[in-house]
Amino acid sequence: MDDLDARPGPAPIGPRRRHDPQLDSQGNLKHFLTIDGLERPLLTEILDRAEGFLGVARQAVKKVPLCRGKIVANLFFENSTRTRTTFELAAKRLSADVLNLNISTSATAKGETLLDTLRNLEAMHVDMFVVRHAESGAAHFIAAHAAPHVSVINAGDGRHSHPTQGMLDMFTIRRHKGSIDGLVVAIVGDVLHSRVARSQISALRTLGAGEVRIIAPRTLVPAGAEDALGVRVYHDLREGVRDADVIIMLRLQRERMDGAFLPSEHEYFHLFGLTEKRLATAKPDAIVMHPGPINRGVEMDSQVADGERSVILEQVSNGLAVRMAVMSMCIGTQHLGAQQEAGHD
Amino acid sequence: MDDLDARPGPAPIGPRRRHDPQLDSQGNLKHFLTIDGLERPLLTEILDRAEGFLGVARQAVKKVPLCRGKIVANLFFENSTRTRTTFELAAKRLSADVLNLNISTSATAKGETLLDTLRNLEAMHVDMFVVRHAESGAAHFIAAHAAPHVSVINAGDGRHSHPTQGMLDMFTIRRHKGSIDGLVVAIVGDVLHSRVARSQISALRTLGAGEVRIIAPRTLVPAGAEDALGVRVYHDLREGVRDADVIIMLRLQRERMDGAFLPSEHEYFHLFGLTEKRLATAKPDAIVMHPGPINRGVEMDSQVADGERSVILEQVSNGLAVRMAVMSMCIGTQHLGAQQEAGHD
Amino acid sequence: MDDLDARPGPAPIGPRRRHDPQLDSQGNLKHFLTIDGLERPLLTEILDRAEGFLGVARQAVKKVPLCRGKIVANLFFENSTRTRTTFELAAKRLSADVLNLNISTSATAKGETLLDTLRNLEAMHVDMFVVRHAESGAAHFIAAHAAPHVSVINAGDGRHSHPTQGMLDMFTIRRHKGSIDGLVVAIVGDVLHSRVARSQISALRTLGAGEVRIIAPRTLVPAGAEDALGVRVYHDLREGVRDADVIIMLRLQRERMDGAFLPSEHEYFHLFGLTEKRLATAKPDAIVMHPGPINRGVEMDSQVADGERSVILEQVSNGLAVRMAVMSMCIGTQHLGAQQEAGHD
Repeated sequence: MDDLDARPGPAPIGPRRRHDPQLDSQGNLKHFLTIDGLERPLLTEILDRAEGFLGVARQAVKKVPLCRGKIVANLFFENSTRTRTTFELAAKRLSADVLNLNISTSATAKGETLLDTLRNLEAMHVDMFVVRHAESGAAHFIAAHAAPHVSVINAGDGRHSHPTQGMLDMFTIRRHKGSIDGLVVAIVGDVLHSRVARSQISALRTLGAGEVRIIAPRTLVPAGAEDALGVRVYHDLREGVRDADVIIMLRLQRERMDGAFLPSEHEYFHLFGLTEKRLATAKPDAIVMHPGPINRGVEMDSQVADGERSVILEQVSNGLAVRMAVMSMCIGTQHLGAQQEAGHD
Repeated sequence: MDDLDARPGPAPIGPRRRHDPQLDSQGNLKHFLTIDGLERPLLTEILDRAEGFLGVARQAVKKVPLCRGKIVANLFFENSTRTRTTFELAAKRLSADVLNLNISTSATAKGETLLDTLRNLEAMHVDMFVVRHAESGAAHFIAAHAAPHVSVINAGDGRHSHPTQGMLDMFTIRRHKGSIDGLVVAIVGDVLHSRVARSQISALRTLGAGEVRIIAPRTLVPAGAEDALGVRVYHDLREGVRDADVIIMLRLQRERMDGAFLPSEHEYFHLFGLTEKRLATAKPDAIVMHPGPINRGVEMDSQVADGERSVILEQVSNGLAVRMAVMSMCIGTQHLGAQQEAGHD
Repeated sequence: MDDLDARPGPAPIGPRRRHDPQLDSQGNLKHFLTIDGLERPLLTEILDRAEGFLGVARQAVKKVPLCRGKIVANLFFENSTRTRTTFELAAKRLSADVLNLNISTSATAKGETLLDTLRNLEAMHVDMFVVRHAESGAAHFIAAHAAPHVSVINAGDGRHSHPTQGMLDMFTIRRHKGSIDGLVVAIVGDVLHSRVARSQISALRTLGAGEVRIIAPRTLVPAGAEDALGVRVYHDLREGVRDADVIIMLRLQRERMDGAFLPSEHEYFHLFGLTEKRLATAKPDAIVMHPGPINRGVEMDSQVADGERSVILEQVSNGLAVRMAVMSMCIGTQHLGAQQEAGHD
């Protein structure tokens, strides 16, 4: 990757682009890499647009032609059938064509560099890369070196960011609470390793949440979280959910745990697992969220997962609408003029 | 799966649904799980509708928009490229979008329960699950717990049922013989382990076949077959095919054989393999069928497989038409009113 | 495969078909297996048609309906994500449906012969097979035994042929030089193992190149190349590229090398690797090509790969247009009359 400077025709970098590499020169969404740095009106536009797409699922023909003829390539360096499927469905519902590329088994195995793989896909006129990668910053790297006509969506990079998950959570909260403004939101679990939590916290703060709490064992709280993330830290579940409007349970990522962080899953549930009883101190109309897939009996018991406060399955449906919103904002033909201006030939 | 009773919002069960879980409250096909219990007019409707779809393959544009915007998810817990491909093609020819999910490598590997996986796909507005599973009853289980707007097609469950295969066989017979009524049909091979045979026998009896025979070594005949299945049992091939109108060879499922059932493939062919000579006692216009893939030199020799009585490749073409018929009856927009009534929101 | 003669209904072979199995009875392209034997007007028709498709990539909706409702099956016996992807994209841009079949893991694993697999796909009304196989002649074999309505494209067979790659290279040269006529073209690298080189040489000669040179170590030049291929052989890079209009670098196929041919990659680059300095003797406007993926620092350094003479990424874009051209010539609905005449029912 030391040949980057040598590559011909780098993207022209306008004055505003310097401020946020996710926006084009007119301030429209070009990439969706992180929620950090995006302003409230843009986040609200995503939510409003997603609202419109919710209705598409109720139509007899669940398709809109906004991205017809566009090509979306799923570049999943880290396997995730669930997330890939939601992006694939969102793209198909927008009438785009989808390429699923398992990068680990393709050309890179033949010794091709990542950038050569990208250049090749760009030369095939791919319009969007949906990138999942185990390393933080991977999607930014790809966006920074992508051709001008290509949009990049971060579908999860290392511990850094998972912005469409963050936005579908905001969308779900807004549908139940009317607005994010002033809400007390408790995020429970392994914040230390969670890109989902980072995206949620960022979105909650931009959208005006009253208080964001994280509830976790000491070993799973990032150092200096209170200042760095602007949250309040709790180590006791019952105390942390007191008067909360929203309780977001994080997935205990077994495959990421190094063994040193937790004694056992049983013990984790004993201390941080959500039950109806422990929910008692939250607001009576509090909702319970989880990004899925749930480890039943670890993060929460089935009574909560399937209970009336749970909005977990709504999150999945909402995820489709939010991904359709972001994808169509980046490459939808409504923005064709903007795109051509940005260098699309 | 012991958390089933706890899940919220079970499907409303109307009075007729109690009679056959495959039908909606108006008696229309909702799921296609087994041929058992379906009445003759419905089976005939499937065959008639398939007849109309045969012509689609001859059109310049081999597509009809009956399922446009619908999402069909292939849930194959047991690998079968051939069967998956026919469902994928049938769905695409109906203009549906198709998701191929390799379940063994997806979320269930992360500890998610089967029902959570289903709930998630439902929340993504999948309209139909095509299910293949090594365990008998899997498709029924999924249909019983699916959301009201979702249809389930059984693409083979254990030794139990493979109803689209059964119906494509009926369709093929009807095209050659005009009707199933009064025909003598001989089914040859491993009936004991064959879901295909179960579906064929059920369909043949409902559609009025004159006599259904099974021809197999004693070890491969289900106990009490004559009474339980309503068939005549033969252990001698030449005797069993005498005056038969139709001879259906079953695939010798090597991968299912435990070793105790048969001495060797060579010996099997010697006793039960079909040759031109052994066909001599059948009716002069008898047709030979096989669900594929053929083990040449085991179930039959190549002279028969490629001979003029063989309709084996027609079965493949017919399979597409029959699957299009079943899929469009379950989720086609012609039945939109019925679906909405059934709970689709 | 000894049952070939027994199969019913072989394709009717017209008088012209005897001359070139790639053409139908009216001289239209039916299969695309090799450039050998195709005449200049047909190659020019492919290039002209591809020119028209280049514009499709610039449209807002990058689709044309020429192959709508057609089914293209990618039969890749040899894995190649890159090549499969270009065919998949070309087919989708023509509005065809695509089946990706990983042959090694499908029915053939259950003991089905290759011809039975083909017969089954034909019975499913597949219109085109795109075949990649490690054995030379595989695509010809499949075309020879395919049903009359099916077209076959060779996507690379052993060391024999890779005709769409050859044609996209011609297309790229013509766009830069106006014509192939009289050009001096140098092909550098492992000609001995290269199906790409065979296709290039064949196309260059038919299209009137002035001189075709191959530049390679003695161990990587086919025996009797000068007479057999009609080329001039060089073993010195600087001498070989002197006054060349076009320099085509072949990929050093590490996975094909047996170890006996070359001392080391480092040594190879030292002798045959392209650098700006070594390009000095070529014509000032010479272009540099490579079929990809590049081994940087082996076939060439990054300065050349990313330099202003490099047209390597254009080759990728052009590959889409050329594949669209060939596919639409074989199965596009513009030729529907011809197809029906050829036996399509």
